[in-house]
Amino acid sequence: MWDDNRITIDGTTDVAWSEDVSARFEAAGWHVQSCDGHDVELLNAALEVAAEVTDRPSMIACRTHIGHGSPTKQDTSAAHGAPLGVDEIVATKEAIGWDPEAHFLVPDEAIAGFDALRARGAAKNAAWQEMFRSYRTAHPQLANLWLSLHDSAGLPHDLDDLLPGFDDDPKVATRKASGRVIEAIAAALPTMIGGSADLAGSNVTKIAGEEPLAAGTPGGRNMAYGIREHGMAAVMNGMALHGGVIPYAGTFLTFSDYMRGAMRLSALMEQRVIYVLTHDSIFLGEDGPTHQSVEHAMALRLIPNMTVLRPADARETAAAWGAALRRTDGPTCLLLTRQGLPSLAGTRNATAGVKAGAYTVLESDGDPELVLVGTGSEVHLCVAAAEALHAEGRRVRVVSMPDMSAYLRLDRAEQDALIPPSAAKLAVEAGRPFGWAEVIGRDGTVIGVDRFGESAPADDLAEFFGLTIANVREVARRLIG
Amino acid sequence: MWDDNRITIDGTTDVAWSEDVSARFEAAGWHVQSCDGHDVELLNAALEVAAEVTDRPSMIACRTHIGHGSPTKQDTSAAHGAPLGVDEIVATKEAIGWDPEAHFLVPDEAIAGFDALRARGAAKNAAWQEMFRSYRTAHPQLANLWLSLHDSAGLPHDLDDLLPGFDDDPKVATRKASGRVIEAIAAALPTMIGGSADLAGSNVTKIAGEEPLAAGTPGGRNMAYGIREHGMAAVMNGMALHGGVIPYAGTFLTFSDYMRGAMRLSALMEQRVIYVLTHDSIFLGEDGPTHQSVEHAMALRLIPNMTVLRPADARETAAAWGAALRRTDGPTCLLLTRQGLPSLAGTRNATAGVKAGAYTVLESDGDPELVLVGTGSEVHLCVAAAEALHAEGRRVRVVSMPDMSAYLRLDRAEQDALIPPSAAKLAVEAGRPFGWAEVIGRDGTVIGVDRFGESAPADDLAEFFGLTIANVREVARRLIG
Repeated sequence: MWDDNRITIDGTTDVAWSEDVSARFEAAGWHVQSCDGHDVELLNAALEVAAEVTDRPSMIACRTHIGHGSPTKQDTSAAHGAPLGVDEIVATKEAIGWDPEAHFLVPDEAIAGFDALRARGAAKNAAWQEMFRSYRTAHPQLANLWLSLHDSAGLPHDLDDLLPGFDDDPKVATRKASGRVIEAIAAALPTMIGGSADLAGSNVTKIAGEEPLAAGTPGGRNMAYGIREHGMAAVMNGMALHGGVIPYAGTFLTFSDYMRGAMRLSALMEQRVIYVLTHDSIFLGEDGPTHQSVEHAMALRLIPNMTVLRPADARETAAAWGAALRRTDGPTCLLLTRQGLPSLAGTRNATAGVKAGAYTVLESDGDPELVLVGTGSEVHLCVAAAEALHAEGRRVRVVSMPDMSAYLRLDRAEQDALIPPSAAKLAVEAGRPFGWAEVIGRDGTVIGVDRFGESAPADDLAEFFGLTIANVREVARRLIG
Repeated sequence: MWDDNRITIDGTTDVAWSEDVSARFEAAGWHVQSCDGHDVELLNAALEVAAEVTDRPSMIACRTHIGHGSPTKQDTSAAHGAPLGVDEIVATKEAIGWDPEAHFLVPDEAIAGFDALRARGAAKNAAWQEMFRSYRTAHPQLANLWLSLHDSAGLPHDLDDLLPGFDDDPKVATRKASGRVIEAIAAALPTMIGGSADLAGSNVTKIAGEEPLAAGTPGGRNMAYGIREHGMAAVMNGMALHGGVIPYAGTFLTFSDYMRGAMRLSALMEQRVIYVLTHDSIFLGEDGPTHQSVEHAMALRLIPNMTVLRPADARETAAAWGAALRRTDGPTCLLLTRQGLPSLAGTRNATAGVKAGAYTVLESDGDPELVLVGTGSEVHLCVAAAEALHAEGRRVRVVSMPDMSAYLRLDRAEQDALIPPSAAKLAVEAGRPFGWAEVIGRDGTVIGVDRFGESAPADDLAEFFGLTIANVREVARRLIG
């Protein structure tokens, strides 16, 4: 039902709107009706017609009057954002034949209507419960599955065993590791419904062997959202609010900008929505600065209640997926690489590391004189540079920080145990350095990307922006003299 | 011309698209044609028809084949994002009767076509130049105005004199001060074209006495963008790229999320687009957390080449407008309050302060033991708290930081002169504290809003979130013992 009152804040809609909305919905394949939105009988008749339409959605354009009945404010934007005011309320009540002195009045007729509604709802609920009891007797396993999916986190008890270990893996992009995780858990988690905004292959979000979720295949689990990032996030919010399903979907990290409004709502409404954001840095390469994330990791960390995980390798990716699935009070962004990354020896404790926010992936021989802190693909630069410095007898620790916000929630003593105040500090992240002072202080050094990216092969970009082992080692050496 | 090749990255468009696009454009009032997009004569004929349509935009749906002529990749998504490959290129050239060994070949016929185009363009350009010479003789003032608006920053030489001084002003919201600035400069800047995404009254963006920019009034300067934030920012980018106009427009700061993709492009394309973002904090009040900005100021600061100004009072607002207009290599966000603010005694140097990013608005009697740093409306809390501490004989400086990014670009000595390392530091901003460590270090203290807002009157929210003079004073006292 479209409340077509033809008023916006700035005046009548025609100041900014010339579209034939019904024709637009028809063009999109909807069943469309229209009626006087204040005539309950007409509206009811239209709803009954709409209920018969089962092959497409139905829209009823309801011509209405904002501030209906108000003598001077009906059909004006004055009735949109501000109260009518005491005088106008009195005049309105008089105009529609109500007692102007009766406040918070609910007419008996309305009470009777709501009472009837309550009785009807109770009866329907009782009938449903009875039906479910019979169903449970007939199909105990399915009924219990249904209950477990709705009444709890909806996760299998052996989730950790299901997650791939990636123990003997060659180089793998974390987006591909994410795809392997999805494959590994999809069968045990029939409620996971995936998708992508026209980048399913790049985001590696498809569940193998499952059909598309489409009109003809409503049991499908792969949703083709099309090039509609905002719609995708909004749809996932709706799915999560409905419950019983775990929605996840992907796009390039940069395009999170297009759905940021809906992502904020995932966080505000505390919904388990999982964003698979791949091609998470300039290392996306040739597509250039419009497609290369620079500020997005930090900008997403700024949204309250948004968990942002940037795993360093396949094992951290599996741990990140585990954390995202277990998180029932808010959304998670998984920031994943386009480029292949080997598994790090130090990520066997990835699950604990993701939970703490940060952990040591390469230890120093003795109290560290320098701590290298990295996230995602840049942890590899830190490890390789530290290994070279170890060979020179230097005491260097490498910390992987898949969840900066979780690290910042640790108390100061825990933070200092990992990144000692006495050590020199160098952070490496292929994004804007702004914000890293929260972790390493104003006197820490950051190797990052403090500008828009460039179009070039990833290796050339690494050289250009100093995101190389050689540069990390050189800057590190400078810091410890 | 709509390149209707029916292919997206994930396959044929019908996996995610059932809309009748031509009907949709017709519903939006467009003139619509369709033709074979590979038939140049048909296309030319359609363009000639479209050229006759002067009362609405025209769309030609061109049925095309992606990878046209490629024997195995035509009409497949394989032709979208990747090169055809050497073998397929050879096969394609053979299929269309070209020499497969000829590389970078431009056929003579095509060269002749481009040569004719070049000659036609040169003749048109010469005719235009001649017309402009005549015009300049006939209307020297108007012609010079036109030149100055296109060839330079397009600003009057006395811009600073035009900006209101706000010297004897009572309490005024910075959004209203911004409206006064617009009024004051609009006549001298006929190229300023304003607007709002259905919040013109709230954003105070209307130029008084000017018509709406609409089909019937093309000389109007007030654009009603409707509830279309992304479209608004995209349109402004186009206006700025065209040149000769200075576009500005408003919405609530929170809704910047909806146009963040287009705002990023303003920054990437280095365009002078001015974003008037009002209701810039929880002090928006009753509309609640969906409408209350918490993370947006910091998130906008993260976009490379985006200037974010959060002025503390009317005078800083005038200075911010001056800076935004003078900035010809990128966009500016003006973050403005809903609530009224008195003019501060210390903002008489606002122009220099906005340029430097930060400056002292209340000096300490002697080397400061504490520096209070605020932005926007919170500078007032800092000043009032500092005045109370001065009365107790404490040495407290207050720094207003309208442009955090500019401050962070100062060299360390300049930063330290303003915020001495020896002093205790307390930042106050009604937004997420994350990022303030860049300014005041990890050991500085921030009074901010580290969660989503709440729906309540502004004064109640101030109490709830500790954004009061009393709390700033108390925290400050704790810091200096």
